[in-house]
Amino acid sequence: MAKERENKKVLVKVVWSYAAELKLILTALLILCSIATLLQFLPSRFTISTSDLRVCISRVASSTSQTQNDLVSNTSSFNYVSQNDIVSNSSSSNNYVIINDVVSNSSSKLNDTVSNSSSSSPISPPPPPPSPPPAPATEQDQLLPNGVLKRAFNPYGLAAYNFITMGTYRGGLNTFAIVAIASKPLHVYGSPTYECQWLQNSSPSSVISTVGYKILPDWGYGRVYTVVVVNCTFSENINVDNSGGKLVLYASTSGAGDRKFNVTDRIEALTEAPGSLDTALFSSKPKYDYFYCGSSLYGSLSPQRVREWLAYHVRLFGPRSHFVIHDAGGVHEEVMEVLKPWIELGYVTLQDIRDQERFDGYYHNQFMVVNDCLHRYKFMAKWMFFFDVDEYLFIPPKNTIKTVLESLSDYNQFTIEQMPMSSKLCLSADAGKTYRKWGFEKLVYKDVRKGIRRDRKYAVQPRNLYATGVHMSQNLAGKTTHKTEGRIMYYHYHGTIANRREPCRNLGNWSSINFENNPYKLDTTMRDIAGVVKKFELRMIGTRLQKTRQ
Amino acid sequence: MAKERENKKVLVKVVWSYAAELKLILTALLILCSIATLLQFLPSRFTISTSDLRVCISRVASSTSQTQNDLVSNTSSFNYVSQNDIVSNSSSSNNYVIINDVVSNSSSKLNDTVSNSSSSSPISPPPPPPSPPPAPATEQDQLLPNGVLKRAFNPYGLAAYNFITMGTYRGGLNTFAIVAIASKPLHVYGSPTYECQWLQNSSPSSVISTVGYKILPDWGYGRVYTVVVVNCTFSENINVDNSGGKLVLYASTSGAGDRKFNVTDRIEALTEAPGSLDTALFSSKPKYDYFYCGSSLYGSLSPQRVREWLAYHVRLFGPRSHFVIHDAGGVHEEVMEVLKPWIELGYVTLQDIRDQERFDGYYHNQFMVVNDCLHRYKFMAKWMFFFDVDEYLFIPPKNTIKTVLESLSDYNQFTIEQMPMSSKLCLSADAGKTYRKWGFEKLVYKDVRKGIRRDRKYAVQPRNLYATGVHMSQNLAGKTTHKTEGRIMYYHYHGTIANRREPCRNLGNWSSINFENNPYKLDTTMRDIAGVVKKFELRMIGTRLQKTRQ
Repeated sequence: MAKERENKKVLVKVVWSYAAELKLILTALLILCSIATLLQFLPSRFTISTSDLRVCISRVASSTSQTQNDLVSNTSSFNYVSQNDIVSNSSSSNNYVIINDVVSNSSSKLNDTVSNSSSSSPISPPPPPPSPPPAPATEQDQLLPNGVLKRAFNPYGLAAYNFITMGTYRGGLNTFAIVAIASKPLHVYGSPTYECQWLQNSSPSSVISTVGYKILPDWGYGRVYTVVVVNCTFSENINVDNSGGKLVLYASTSGAGDRKFNVTDRIEALTEAPGSLDTALFSSKPKYDYFYCGSSLYGSLSPQRVREWLAYHVRLFGPRSHFVIHDAGGVHEEVMEVLKPWIELGYVTLQDIRDQERFDGYYHNQFMVVNDCLHRYKFMAKWMFFFDVDEYLFIPPKNTIKTVLESLSDYNQFTIEQMPMSSKLCLSADAGKTYRKWGFEKLVYKDVRKGIRRDRKYAVQPRNLYATGVHMSQNLAGKTTHKTEGRIMYYHYHGTIANRREPCRNLGNWSSINFENNPYKLDTTMRDIAGVVKKFELRMIGTRLQKTRQ
Repeated sequence: MAKERENKKVLVKVVWSYAAELKLILTALLILCSIATLLQFLPSRFTISTSDLRVCISRVASSTSQTQNDLVSNTSSFNYVSQNDIVSNSSSSNNYVIINDVVSNSSSKLNDTVSNSSSSSPISPPPPPPSPPPAPATEQDQLLPNGVLKRAFNPYGLAAYNFITMGTYRGGLNTFAIVAIASKPLHVYGSPTYECQWLQNSSPSSVISTVGYKILPDWGYGRVYTVVVVNCTFSENINVDNSGGKLVLYASTSGAGDRKFNVTDRIEALTEAPGSLDTALFSSKPKYDYFYCGSSLYGSLSPQRVREWLAYHVRLFGPRSHFVIHDAGGVHEEVMEVLKPWIELGYVTLQDIRDQERFDGYYHNQFMVVNDCLHRYKFMAKWMFFFDVDEYLFIPPKNTIKTVLESLSDYNQFTIEQMPMSSKLCLSADAGKTYRKWGFEKLVYKDVRKGIRRDRKYAVQPRNLYATGVHMSQNLAGKTTHKTEGRIMYYHYHGTIANRREPCRNLGNWSSINFENNPYKLDTTMRDIAGVVKKFELRMIGTRLQKTRQ
């Protein structure tokens, strides 16, 4: 009995000590690991980073290679400065590792698919793993055995993204357009490549691939970034069973920023939800006859000038028309007021594109913006117009916009002659009441210099375009004509749209005049329509804009 | 007793069940966390990534925000394709988070130090935490309540680094130079800023800061990258107690690649080991009188031409001279053979700079290379020369290099007139034995066109330079002179150094001739020294290079 009791005692002791030890060991490990795991979800305000713990653990777990030793020396103290060490080190190491992953995985994958270009191919098992990524630590100069000093070059940070998407759109049964900007020196000095893949929901084990054809519609312009339209045209129709799928773009730098790495970024460009594809769209009659794609609006725009422009063009284009306005910062409160009535009537769509200001391209990335508009509304418009809000289309009497465009319907693009108007010269008849007159009503003097090349604007049948520019498209199927003189033109009131003061500076009664070394002639064509346009506005939206200021 | 035994039994049972439960719970948690933790050290070949587990755990741990949901949907399957999803997502998320960390931490820190610019300041406690980083998931277009469509722009990948270091060197008691290349559009279109900090080992709680002054010595050249020399001059002497320390550079993009982020990279530019600083160096007599900094050597160089150039210039400059050759790919096996004897005698240092080929700059990053050489050897040379290996310095008789440079010692820089030589015209006297003659021996016709601007080369007293170019330095203290005609000049055998064939194409006995529309005159100045140079080479290194090929 006593022995039994003894045994029990021993047993209890053993059990206790076993449990206690287990508890201790497991708890210690648990706490350590939990911290390491949980810290990854904590916001950045903690001065201790998960890297620290990873390092601690890796140190304990042996295998402290040179690289890790470097890292360890940087992370030996947990104060503010050394946190920065860790951050910058782990940043570059993460970059390397991940970039390398993406590169090697997707490039070998791309190789698979490139060779099967434009054909269905079942996904092959993952390729053999790549060699481990380069050491994340700073490389040091090395004295080689032959006495040569091998110099090390250490890159840091990011000065330009590879690719920045704005929109991806279907262009038909088997084709897509991806509208984007990309690093300019990448395109000027490098040869980036694009590969498109379609992943069909109903057939997840097969991938359809094609080479992405890049179009640079603003070649020569651009700053940090330049505009790229990637055309993905497959050899077969896409999403035929309408089960939906994804268009994925692989954008490779081909080593432009660092020849050591052909960095490939995987971009999910477009997702088609099951049942969402309406192929009838591509062959249907477009919803609108006339579609306006505006460029980036920026600066302190005159609400009154915008009001006049809208009333004029809604009347000109009529009920089967639509206007897309792109706000890059120019649509302030008062401009918004003059857009609202037309938005409510369904004539105007306003797109807020202020976020593109993050990326330094040519003139508020206007080439990207017009290309987005082209591809986004390609199947909604018979004719698409590209011009500015200080420009007024005009069809001389005896014709209408309908008859003119019908006469040009053999052409997929035509350009339009400019009538440059003075932004300062007005009639003395308007003295004292200029502020009540509309811009195109009071600015009646036309610049008649001869022999100088003037910008033209243009219109296109958008289903035939691959990309577009600002003064014309150079990427289209079909014919272009410039012989439109006398049939259609545009009056250009340069310098009036961002002028918040009364434009009339010099009033006179001249039939012609030399002003600031240029010859001007009286042209009241536009002035003569002002009354009709004002009545049209009143009939359409009432008096709500009568108090609009310049 | 029975009761006691019962109690014991109960106790044992309780203990056992407690231990078992504890073991179960802790083990389960331990395994989960251990996997999450350990996976971070596994090589990239595993198709399961830590992101997966982070997501799983975060999902269990509730707080699945929209962002996490996005991520979850991407990581729901573990096949090859979805691994790519994870990689690309976690790549961009890591970038964002880390960049944001760096930005907010170091920019607020920079603010601290900028305001205390060039003064010791104790490290203040970390600033209030920044707002959490932006969502890593792809942003979507948003229809706003007022009917406006807010467009989203999604950046991917990296097309150019912010900053790539080659070397950092002390320029005196309180000044350093960091030689680097940086993204060119960053400098052309943006305004990147640099901040230098010194962290002294003996005083880890204080930081000395100064604004980094950037010099762009190749302005107008450059491709993806352009050359930057950042001068860090502090208002006090650095590392005075010789306990060692670190020079850290904060390189900020000021939003050039993305205005949303002022990305700041932390770069440990230089570490001075305890006791390593020798301040006597800055005021001591330099080890060498004449120091040659060569530009990037590239292409298939002629070993014989390099052999001739070396023998000629070692003789010209004499025993107190040194030559630094930069191999950007041009020093192949046979060229190495002709360098070796001079490396062994201590006249030549060969630097392998092939790794800079990763980064696309102007002509193999030659502007970075010469600036590295300038700053690296600043205190080792009285005079430093910058010219190419197809160019031969010449001092007309009655003078020596010593007397000429003494006469120019008031100037910190002088430029040198060019004597352009034909790379094809030779003497008929050499017919049949041109292959045995040296290049500067057989190419004896000088281009005597008048009135055209010819490149000049230059020499400097390097302690007075902040940066240097290829044809001259524009960043120096003191005077520059160009009036060196007749005292020093250089013969330029353009097109001979990368020509592996016999250069003599036309042999004649002309005193002057018009060839390929240019007038040439016989000039045997260099030919006349060939014998002396050959004897010098034989005396210095023996016959080992006699069989060198062109």
